[in-house]
Amino acid sequence: MALEVYWGSGSPYAWRVLLGLEVKKIEYESNRLSFTDEDLKSDEYLAISPRGKVPAIRDGSVTVHESIAILRYLEDLKPEPILFGNDPSERSKIWCSIMEIMNYIEPSILDYARTIFYEELSDKKQIAIRARKAIEDELTILNTSLKNKNYLASDNLSAADIILYPVIPFLSRAAMKENTEEVSGKLRAIDDNYLAVGAWCKRIESIPGFEKTYPPHWKE
Amino acid sequence: MALEVYWGSGSPYAWRVLLGLEVKKIEYESNRLSFTDEDLKSDEYLAISPRGKVPAIRDGSVTVHESIAILRYLEDLKPEPILFGNDPSERSKIWCSIMEIMNYIEPSILDYARTIFYEELSDKKQIAIRARKAIEDELTILNTSLKNKNYLASDNLSAADIILYPVIPFLSRAAMKENTEEVSGKLRAIDDNYLAVGAWCKRIESIPGFEKTYPPHWKE
Repeated sequence: MALEVYWGSGSPYAWRVLLGLEVKKIEYESNRLSFTDEDLKSDEYLAISPRGKVPAIRDGSVTVHESIAILRYLEDLKPEPILFGNDPSERSKIWCSIMEIMNYIEPSILDYARTIFYEELSDKKQIAIRARKAIEDELTILNTSLKNKNYLASDNLSAADIILYPVIPFLSRAAMKENTEEVSGKLRAIDDNYLAVGAWCKRIESIPGFEKTYPPHWKE
Repeated sequence: MALEVYWGSGSPYAWRVLLGLEVKKIEYESNRLSFTDEDLKSDEYLAISPRGKVPAIRDGSVTVHESIAILRYLEDLKPEPILFGNDPSERSKIWCSIMEIMNYIEPSILDYARTIFYEELSDKKQIAIRARKAIEDELTILNTSLKNKNYLASDNLSAADIILYPVIPFLSRAAMKENTEEVSGKLRAIDDNYLAVGAWCKRIESIPGFEKTYPPHWKE
């Protein structure tokens, strides 16, 4: 029985899993869900993903939710190419990088995107600007680090790259929304303002199968 | 050369690492830092922990920061007792539980504690109350789950327990602060309001060596 994968178009978390599947060349049954209670809050889906979120997977009797837990499961399912490190030192660098993504840039990107996509920006301008500045600081750190190496945690592609990448185009999309010039700062042209980050994005985008993972509704 | 451990009293992140060291019975050289720029922003410490935060460790030529990355490194350093799972299914449950802690209860506890400890509560009452409600929802989920098993992710102690535990007494301490009755809700008596969570806390507190990990300045 093929691995069942549940995802939603535009979710950076789901995108991580789709990218991991391409990198590891794991075959799967694709289940694209809509962001509706009908899809996400059905009894059937809640049995797989108790919070009714994407992504989630089912592999026989095993169900896994939370994108990073799923990527770690894929490493057990098909170890090659190794994404979580070959030895203790490399593993610690990769996990440290994953934790820094989760603890620093990701919360600011969520704050920023939430004010742009879901709230009345005029009420929340200060929150958006504060989040944007925190994101710019983190992009500067990443850019400095990526000047000296091809990937975030080592010279090879790792889970850290797969975990960070999808939030960058998600962020660009928020920053490009109309009437947000005032709060978008350097985020409207990440490739130009953070050259090493832009070059790293291009490396991820050249992964065979990448185009299959791109959010379909963003192409429309 | 002994493992060097850098920590600060009262940091729930540092506490995780101290707990992990006791559980695995790893000897270490303890370096307690104060929360001052003199300790945290010295060139020497920034070489170990580039953001100037605790915890961090140095093991020969390897340095690791970020509490969960450190715990994962300890698993390589001394595999027994296994904290990150014995097989793919158990590993996925443990990582899923860790990610749920990071993504749901921890951010709300940080929002709550920040308004109590560092800000003018009168300005931030609505933020504190919203965070408190989110924490109560997560404690209810945890309580239900802990009615059926002794530990978060399996019947055995895992990294998920060590990662969650320190934020609970940290939360209680915030909720007990004077003049915060109005925003503390059920959080002033977690043991009484969430019986299974309280019983689970007692299990963690009975780990041999636990008392050595308790924040020293909380005893004063």
